[in-house]
Amino acid sequence: MFREKITVLDCTVRDGGLINDHYFEDHFVREIYKAISASGVDYMEIGYRASKKILSPDQFGKWKFCEEDDIKRAIDGVESNTKLSVMVDIGRVHEEDILPCKDSVVDMIRVATYVKDVDKAIDLANLALGKGYEATINIMAISKALDQELDEALDQIERECKVSAVYIVDSFGALYSENITYLANKFKKILKTKEVGIHGHNNQQLAYANTIQGIIDGCNYVDGTIYGIGRAAGNCPMELLIGFLKNPKFDLRPILDVISREFIPMREKIEWGYLLPYAITGMFNEHPRTAMALRKTENKDKYLEFYESMSAMEID
Amino acid sequence: MFREKITVLDCTVRDGGLINDHYFEDHFVREIYKAISASGVDYMEIGYRASKKILSPDQFGKWKFCEEDDIKRAIDGVESNTKLSVMVDIGRVHEEDILPCKDSVVDMIRVATYVKDVDKAIDLANLALGKGYEATINIMAISKALDQELDEALDQIERECKVSAVYIVDSFGALYSENITYLANKFKKILKTKEVGIHGHNNQQLAYANTIQGIIDGCNYVDGTIYGIGRAAGNCPMELLIGFLKNPKFDLRPILDVISREFIPMREKIEWGYLLPYAITGMFNEHPRTAMALRKTENKDKYLEFYESMSAMEID
Repeated sequence: MFREKITVLDCTVRDGGLINDHYFEDHFVREIYKAISASGVDYMEIGYRASKKILSPDQFGKWKFCEEDDIKRAIDGVESNTKLSVMVDIGRVHEEDILPCKDSVVDMIRVATYVKDVDKAIDLANLALGKGYEATINIMAISKALDQELDEALDQIERECKVSAVYIVDSFGALYSENITYLANKFKKILKTKEVGIHGHNNQQLAYANTIQGIIDGCNYVDGTIYGIGRAAGNCPMELLIGFLKNPKFDLRPILDVISREFIPMREKIEWGYLLPYAITGMFNEHPRTAMALRKTENKDKYLEFYESMSAMEID
Repeated sequence: MFREKITVLDCTVRDGGLINDHYFEDHFVREIYKAISASGVDYMEIGYRASKKILSPDQFGKWKFCEEDDIKRAIDGVESNTKLSVMVDIGRVHEEDILPCKDSVVDMIRVATYVKDVDKAIDLANLALGKGYEATINIMAISKALDQELDEALDQIERECKVSAVYIVDSFGALYSENITYLANKFKKILKTKEVGIHGHNNQQLAYANTIQGIIDGCNYVDGTIYGIGRAAGNCPMELLIGFLKNPKFDLRPILDVISREFIPMREKIEWGYLLPYAITGMFNEHPRTAMALRKTENKDKYLEFYESMSAMEID
């Protein structure tokens, strides 16, 4: 698939940080940046930008805050055409945490939101745009969104702000390809002046397949993470995505190399990927938090009991 | 997705046997049979039927031969409506190895073939049909088949034998959803009196997604294996497939239970699933044998070198 407008964003450090409370070492982040830069990927999301007045630096690593000096230290001296992105959560960042873009190493700010918070998301995106950044709005948990609310939210975004793209975020890994097609068509119809993005989760081994489906359906902003690292079942594996895209600007080899060197050892220490409890929460269209809690207990591989407990919750 | 005509076949023991030379213990096979039967899956493929005059019983476990007494011992006393299938390879079985169906516990014989061997496959399928079995023809390595040869082969099958179904077999895990749609439409157009089947491999994490795509495109025979076990990257995970199909005759719970009890311990001993060397052979549309060989060496996680070696082969 070659379409020049396709923009690939790597969110290895940002979504991966949800597994280890954002405590990646500088060395690791630098190796990711080198690999992503060498592979020709358009953007790298290096973490969240949160306020230290709201979240405690005692509880989270530095990639939850992405202070300018920390980013500079990690990327210093690396040759790169890859732009940098940070994600912001509504209510976790103050205006003062966002420098004017001309004074920052960050190029793009992505606003994560639920449908119900779209007013706040638009405000935050407009703040970022006003400071000179590119911006996107990423609609999380979209598999739970009611059609009417989603239509209104998209219409409001289209009218009230000039983000580059609005993302379909399958937070629960619950969507099938036909859902992607339905949502992509809806987004394209309402968002006449914006690109559509897709961010998958791999609970049912569909993150990559759904990303391809999104591309077929006209999504031009696509997310991936190296070796699929990310919360719970993880994300669309960047290595598969780059293997699929035929734009000669991409090079798979630096990604394969960094997987061997950094991700195989890391996977021994922290867990992500296809595991049955995550598949089950995906099937039930639920947040993986119950499954993540289960994986920390001695019952981590008791799948039938976990399934029954999810079924019982459904009846409520 | 509820479509009554959808027929699900579990090939856990058959395709899984390609990892361990078919040396599964009776206990394991019996547990699979109990779980598959309790889950309401239509068929279980219990192994290959090969001739002991052609292949040596010193080199393969009993599920390479599937003698009637061995099957009987494994399934004896288990309540089941699941039919049994065995796979036959061209040139590895004699007529005498196939009892009349009325004297056998096997219900269906699936003939594995390359496009070029379709004449022999039709002969073998007709032999099975003549002895009273249901039969299918499974066209392996279809991602390498030339269109004209495939058209001719399908036309010949349609004219010369009465198999229930003809399978699209993505042996190399190289197909994308658009390829599945193309092939399924071709198969349906030529095979007017037969069902179309699909058997995926998970090299690029697409086995399940492609199986869903096949179902959307009218494939009514679908293969899966429990926990995705199977040669190299494995197959479409049965647990995901059953989670997707909405026919109330299926029950996911016995499959979840047997994964906890049998597959988690087994995965510690033998390896299958998404691993980068298999993803790479899938991208190159090649048999995974070079990747399987690599995984037995100390270079098993040197992905860049492996990719470069595959690239060099491509130039030849």
